[in-house]
Amino acid sequence: MKLKIFDRMESEVRGYIRSFPVIFSQARGSLLIDDTNKEYVDFFSGAGTLNYGHNNPALKERLIEYLNTDGIVHGLDMATEAKKYFLETVERVLLKPRNWRYTLQFTGPTGTNAVEAALKLARQVKGRQNIVSFTHGFHGVSGGSLAVTANAKFRNAAGVALANTTFMPFDGYLGPDVDTISYFERMLEDPSSGLDHPAAVIVETVQGEGGVNVATWRWLRELERLCRKHDMLLIVDDIQVGCGRTGSFFSFENAGIQPDIITLSKSLSGFGLPMSLVMFKPELDIWKPGAHSGTFRGNNLAFVTAAHALERYWSDDIFAGEVARKERIVRDWLENLVHSYPGTGLSVRGRGLIQGLVMNQEGMAGRVSQEAFLQGLVIETSGANDEVLKLLPALTIEDTYLLQGLEVIERSVAQVLSESRHSASVVRLGRKAG
Amino acid sequence: MKLKIFDRMESEVRGYIRSFPVIFSQARGSLLIDDTNKEYVDFFSGAGTLNYGHNNPALKERLIEYLNTDGIVHGLDMATEAKKYFLETVERVLLKPRNWRYTLQFTGPTGTNAVEAALKLARQVKGRQNIVSFTHGFHGVSGGSLAVTANAKFRNAAGVALANTTFMPFDGYLGPDVDTISYFERMLEDPSSGLDHPAAVIVETVQGEGGVNVATWRWLRELERLCRKHDMLLIVDDIQVGCGRTGSFFSFENAGIQPDIITLSKSLSGFGLPMSLVMFKPELDIWKPGAHSGTFRGNNLAFVTAAHALERYWSDDIFAGEVARKERIVRDWLENLVHSYPGTGLSVRGRGLIQGLVMNQEGMAGRVSQEAFLQGLVIETSGANDEVLKLLPALTIEDTYLLQGLEVIERSVAQVLSESRHSASVVRLGRKAG
Amino acid sequence: MKLKIFDRMESEVRGYIRSFPVIFSQARGSLLIDDTNKEYVDFFSGAGTLNYGHNNPALKERLIEYLNTDGIVHGLDMATEAKKYFLETVERVLLKPRNWRYTLQFTGPTGTNAVEAALKLARQVKGRQNIVSFTHGFHGVSGGSLAVTANAKFRNAAGVALANTTFMPFDGYLGPDVDTISYFERMLEDPSSGLDHPAAVIVETVQGEGGVNVATWRWLRELERLCRKHDMLLIVDDIQVGCGRTGSFFSFENAGIQPDIITLSKSLSGFGLPMSLVMFKPELDIWKPGAHSGTFRGNNLAFVTAAHALERYWSDDIFAGEVARKERIVRDWLENLVHSYPGTGLSVRGRGLIQGLVMNQEGMAGRVSQEAFLQGLVIETSGANDEVLKLLPALTIEDTYLLQGLEVIERSVAQVLSESRHSASVVRLGRKAG
Amino acid sequence: MKLKIFDRMESEVRGYIRSFPVIFSQARGSLLIDDTNKEYVDFFSGAGTLNYGHNNPALKERLIEYLNTDGIVHGLDMATEAKKYFLETVERVLLKPRNWRYTLQFTGPTGTNAVEAALKLARQVKGRQNIVSFTHGFHGVSGGSLAVTANAKFRNAAGVALANTTFMPFDGYLGPDVDTISYFERMLEDPSSGLDHPAAVIVETVQGEGGVNVATWRWLRELERLCRKHDMLLIVDDIQVGCGRTGSFFSFENAGIQPDIITLSKSLSGFGLPMSLVMFKPELDIWKPGAHSGTFRGNNLAFVTAAHALERYWSDDIFAGEVARKERIVRDWLENLVHSYPGTGLSVRGRGLIQGLVMNQEGMAGRVSQEAFLQGLVIETSGANDEVLKLLPALTIEDTYLLQGLEVIERSVAQVLSESRHSASVVRLGRKAG
Repeated sequence: MKLKIFDRMESEVRGYIRSFPVIFSQARGSLLIDDTNKEYVDFFSGAGTLNYGHNNPALKERLIEYLNTDGIVHGLDMATEAKKYFLETVERVLLKPRNWRYTLQFTGPTGTNAVEAALKLARQVKGRQNIVSFTHGFHGVSGGSLAVTANAKFRNAAGVALANTTFMPFDGYLGPDVDTISYFERMLEDPSSGLDHPAAVIVETVQGEGGVNVATWRWLRELERLCRKHDMLLIVDDIQVGCGRTGSFFSFENAGIQPDIITLSKSLSGFGLPMSLVMFKPELDIWKPGAHSGTFRGNNLAFVTAAHALERYWSDDIFAGEVARKERIVRDWLENLVHSYPGTGLSVRGRGLIQGLVMNQEGMAGRVSQEAFLQGLVIETSGANDEVLKLLPALTIEDTYLLQGLEVIERSVAQVLSESRHSASVVRLGRKAG
Repeated sequence: MKLKIFDRMESEVRGYIRSFPVIFSQARGSLLIDDTNKEYVDFFSGAGTLNYGHNNPALKERLIEYLNTDGIVHGLDMATEAKKYFLETVERVLLKPRNWRYTLQFTGPTGTNAVEAALKLARQVKGRQNIVSFTHGFHGVSGGSLAVTANAKFRNAAGVALANTTFMPFDGYLGPDVDTISYFERMLEDPSSGLDHPAAVIVETVQGEGGVNVATWRWLRELERLCRKHDMLLIVDDIQVGCGRTGSFFSFENAGIQPDIITLSKSLSGFGLPMSLVMFKPELDIWKPGAHSGTFRGNNLAFVTAAHALERYWSDDIFAGEVARKERIVRDWLENLVHSYPGTGLSVRGRGLIQGLVMNQEGMAGRVSQEAFLQGLVIETSGANDEVLKLLPALTIEDTYLLQGLEVIERSVAQVLSESRHSASVVRLGRKAG
Repeated sequence: MKLKIFDRMESEVRGYIRSFPVIFSQARGSLLIDDTNKEYVDFFSGAGTLNYGHNNPALKERLIEYLNTDGIVHGLDMATEAKKYFLETVERVLLKPRNWRYTLQFTGPTGTNAVEAALKLARQVKGRQNIVSFTHGFHGVSGGSLAVTANAKFRNAAGVALANTTFMPFDGYLGPDVDTISYFERMLEDPSSGLDHPAAVIVETVQGEGGVNVATWRWLRELERLCRKHDMLLIVDDIQVGCGRTGSFFSFENAGIQPDIITLSKSLSGFGLPMSLVMFKPELDIWKPGAHSGTFRGNNLAFVTAAHALERYWSDDIFAGEVARKERIVRDWLENLVHSYPGTGLSVRGRGLIQGLVMNQEGMAGRVSQEAFLQGLVIETSGANDEVLKLLPALTIEDTYLLQGLEVIERSVAQVLSESRHSASVVRLGRKAG
Repeated sequence: MKLKIFDRMESEVRGYIRSFPVIFSQARGSLLIDDTNKEYVDFFSGAGTLNYGHNNPALKERLIEYLNTDGIVHGLDMATEAKKYFLETVERVLLKPRNWRYTLQFTGPTGTNAVEAALKLARQVKGRQNIVSFTHGFHGVSGGSLAVTANAKFRNAAGVALANTTFMPFDGYLGPDVDTISYFERMLEDPSSGLDHPAAVIVETVQGEGGVNVATWRWLRELERLCRKHDMLLIVDDIQVGCGRTGSFFSFENAGIQPDIITLSKSLSGFGLPMSLVMFKPELDIWKPGAHSGTFRGNNLAFVTAAHALERYWSDDIFAGEVARKERIVRDWLENLVHSYPGTGLSVRGRGLIQGLVMNQEGMAGRVSQEAFLQGLVIETSGANDEVLKLLPALTIEDTYLLQGLEVIERSVAQVLSESRHSASVVRLGRKAG
């Protein structure tokens, strides 16, 4: 009823509004509030965009201050104070402590713009067209990114054939006994495998949209080795699980690998403002001036909050320690839950504060999400068949809300399992994606 | 010197910073201020993104107010108060008065995301892959949009062959005597022309990046006729010249045509915030839920300012009248300037407050832009060879700044023409794009 | 009735059998004989494959002699006596007298195989993917060749989007007043035309399938100039109009141009045996051993007849003189015919012994072809709408049969024109292509 | 020395001439004779094109007889006596006894033309663009076929990106323990595998060029099941191993499967004459008249010999029995040879009279082929690294030549093994392909 204007005016393409059919009016930290003042704990965080919570007060303060002084809002790629400060902060907080050298490219402020730039650069550098992506990989829906995105829902909407990509099985895709890196290596070394020599490999260390599939450190290292051996660039798409989501700022740090190209977006601005960044090794910088553009590549409001978020949360190890602590809480809770329901096919996977509760019964994860919403928790599913309940709380979530959310999950799972013992099957409308 | 951190950290891909090598710190209305407090009149407006000026006070007030109440900032495509109000405002201000029916799709908040969605939809609806675009057309640099963008600088950076597009000559491309619509029609009607039947035609009514090339109303009507006759959708990309730039909110209104699909972005939020919108005839809405996504498709801060901008400037005809008045000032001034320098190859073209001063001597427009910058005017060039000085003042510019800018142009042209009589040639580094 | 087995067993794709629905059993020179012993004069010559007539006795003698000595029939690309003799003959008869140097590549024995090889080589040499082809161009129907073939009937059958080709208007396509080379040049020189820099241009000097469209010598020279200036290879596809069809062995000789790559097939063997050849400038030979293959690229029976045909007909100018004499007969007759029916839209075009009688009334050329067949003449139509009656008699045709055929055409045209004055419209089933 | 004219005139693309650097002048049955009258036993058979030997006397007699009566040589797709007789023979000898219904399409007379037509038809029927092909698959080198051919040597020569194909691992590709059909099925059933739903699967039952890789009957049946379940057409490319090569006329007969589309060429004419055929289930015949053409699709000389070959060898089971008997001779001999050299990595694989002796030492198969040639045996290698000695004797080979060839192989293997014990490595120039 209240959503009438949305039904009347907005395209059928809309998705999340179907899962959470209320009108949200306010948000603070880990709470979302609808127009009837009902509060919801947020375990979704804008699909990983709000790692520091909604309307983070410290960031908001800087933002308003900047607006009040009439700072530059829209700057294309002109030099501004805000951009300068962001660059300095990246250097000081991210690069120097790690002893890394990366060149920065600001693209249009959505993840897919960053992926597009990364793929272009890789192809230009290597002079080859093919890119290897992985099963269940998600990298965006604009033409170039879509070609390396695995999901048929998005691919079929293109209306054209998507080319220049080969999909390889992700870590674990062929079961625990098959080493998918060996298969990939076999294809690379066999001159008659049909695999056109790739310019690059693009990979997520944890596939957020794909079902919270976690690549082991060993697998990532082997992948890097393969890239070096076969002259392919390694692109880590850290858009969903970078910016601290898995515990360290970059999701791949603990693997000890050093990607040639890194894409960041989502939680980069820290405040939900559109912003993207491509980082690459300086020797790859063969870009010609202006050869990749984008009207909003200088979203200075985002520079302001992004710089402050880096300083505040990543100047030392304290915040990372907090995330690790919360990871243990979530993980313990979920594993306990799984053990409470033997024989129901439940399992847990994840890293840091992206954790998935896998439910093999068709439609079950969707039902749990629905039930949880009724009980005041916003949580989404992911995976090819929406079979994974995806926990993405803010990294800054207070323990009380974290536990409250976990309790809702527990109750909702109990409720749905009890239902499904009675009824036959549970089906849910397909939709969604970050 | 002061730009050292940019040189050290940022990719060679950066462009505008090379044309305007200062650090901007503040902006108000039509003034940009650098970190030495030098003021510049802005005739560039963020490549058409700041039609209502920098930090428009009325919009800023609403924005800060919204932030202070902890309104939703990042909403994906969930329902929010801010989005609801934007939808209502579009209906009230744009659709009802025109008696139009269009369905709205919110995409990732950059123009190219909107174009990608428009092309996908057209291809899905028609079940065909080819799209006709035009010489000098610019529609973005992500994979799908890039294929319909004509400029080789962008195309060559793709690193892959760009397919599924045929370029037709834009209005006037073959000189004043050749009707390019007839050529297009010939190709469509000849089953052996090599033209694969297009799903759609995508066109800008004034090509901003392409050199301020203006399509006549007659040509646009003929193009619409061709689309109807040959079962192609008509997409008007109004990203740069919509939102009032040419005098009416939609740039094509006076042509009397009704596109099947319209893309908007740039000045849509009115405040320089990233936002995009695709509008299409309701009967085309065959989208499946979630089949085109984008993390930042619910940039609620932009919804707030966008709704207010529509209300404030487009609820009646007063603002459009102001734009028309300023158009006459600019146009008169430029034509006068052209007449002052007979035999130098200068000419004027444009519509509304996008006007181009065409300079056929190689490098001259760039030199004028450089000179103008020294004299306190930010103005850019466009066109395949950067041969057009592009005037894009804010629609809200005060007459005093407008005249001040025009005077700088006049002095700069005089200066450069006098130089070029002495020196041989003027060359300028390539760069730039919106 | 008699064609029952064809109807039952053969695919609907069959074409010419619909135009000439009899069973042919024998053929000699310019006569085809059906299984009721009815004789037909052949003005079609296997779509240009039988320039020396059916079962040319001199060639047949060599062929049977070769078979009787158990010469190699199938040789892949191994060295054989027959191939050696063919190479020597090409050098002696074709290259040395012209003072040309070309390297020879034997591909699979159909025209499209030769075109595929030519396009591959050009793309490898230039490291670019785009090829310019022309409106109404026909170059074959395998994947690579099909992309440069203009006709929608063939293109639509691909089931995939055809890429990496841009079609330019052929000579005269935009009417007598528009210089299509200028348009092409404009596109090449404009960095924002949307034309991706081509590796090569592929062209027929007379478009056989496309409607007997004749490129002027001047236009061909201008095209060569453009290729040189813009670093594109010039490929002349001489498959249908080479081997003497236009009067000289190569169709482009009188233009004074020297293509980088030439494709030959159809009448190359001289006896209707499958054979193809790619000739290119020696410096382009960057092929790796075996990188383009084909089971039947050593059709030695064809080498035997091809070598003999070259020797017999092209060692001196006598045969070319004969062709020129017959061209005048045909041309005079047709022009006379056209003048006899003013106001009916008839016209003539062609070069050498490929001549087209253009009939602008829809279906008329087809009706004339049908009527001619009833009167004992095999003749086909061509052009995008089958609007051109295409005269392709054997170059060796005896004058008596030549005149007999021309008389049939004259009577058939008279008959059809008289009918059409009575009836409304004449429609004919689409089909056919060489 | 004697090959000077080849070196001077022919492209570097030539291949087999490098392996067998003599000039062949005559051939009879399984003997090739060079211009010094040296005889060679032929274990190559024109890459599978000469299953009934060179200059098969019975076929030659019919051919000369046909030529002597001036039968139609070149017929496009017009009806001729020879074609009619061929159609009747296919119906009588191949279809009726098997109780099969297939529609016949004659394409350009090379294998790749047939594959192109098969792929087009499949894509048109299903309205999808993707095709699944297999690792090590070879289907030709024209644009469409090349995209489904796995070998990098051919793919890289294209000069364009090859699209619309996904390569799956062939039977056994991932080792004996991994069921590649399960992997394929997983990819098909997973909506986020990245596999675009294929229109068809194209497969060779024994990969001739790919290294004599044999698909088990079970695997082929599982593949057919997958095709039925997932609405994909099954195309068996029987160009190299059809026409009796594996013992039955069609190579897949014993698997009990019934492909939707079958391609034949190579030994179809029986005499080494270019000819191709596509057979498909009648309900798939959605071809429009003339939508796939080819100048030499009516090679009537080939129709004459093809019909006679079918009648002579395939009217009853006698010939198939003979092939089976010879298969046992070859197989026993090779297995014996393998057992004689334990620890050298030799192994045997094959079906019918295509048998491979696999040699894992780099360059060894090539050395054996060279040595064998010196000893009077023409035999080639295959496989991605030319690691397989491929035995392809004529099916009609006399036992005495068969044994003679096997003895040469045995001696050559002994020789090369003894050498390699002394020297370090054996490298051979790359080249070749069927």
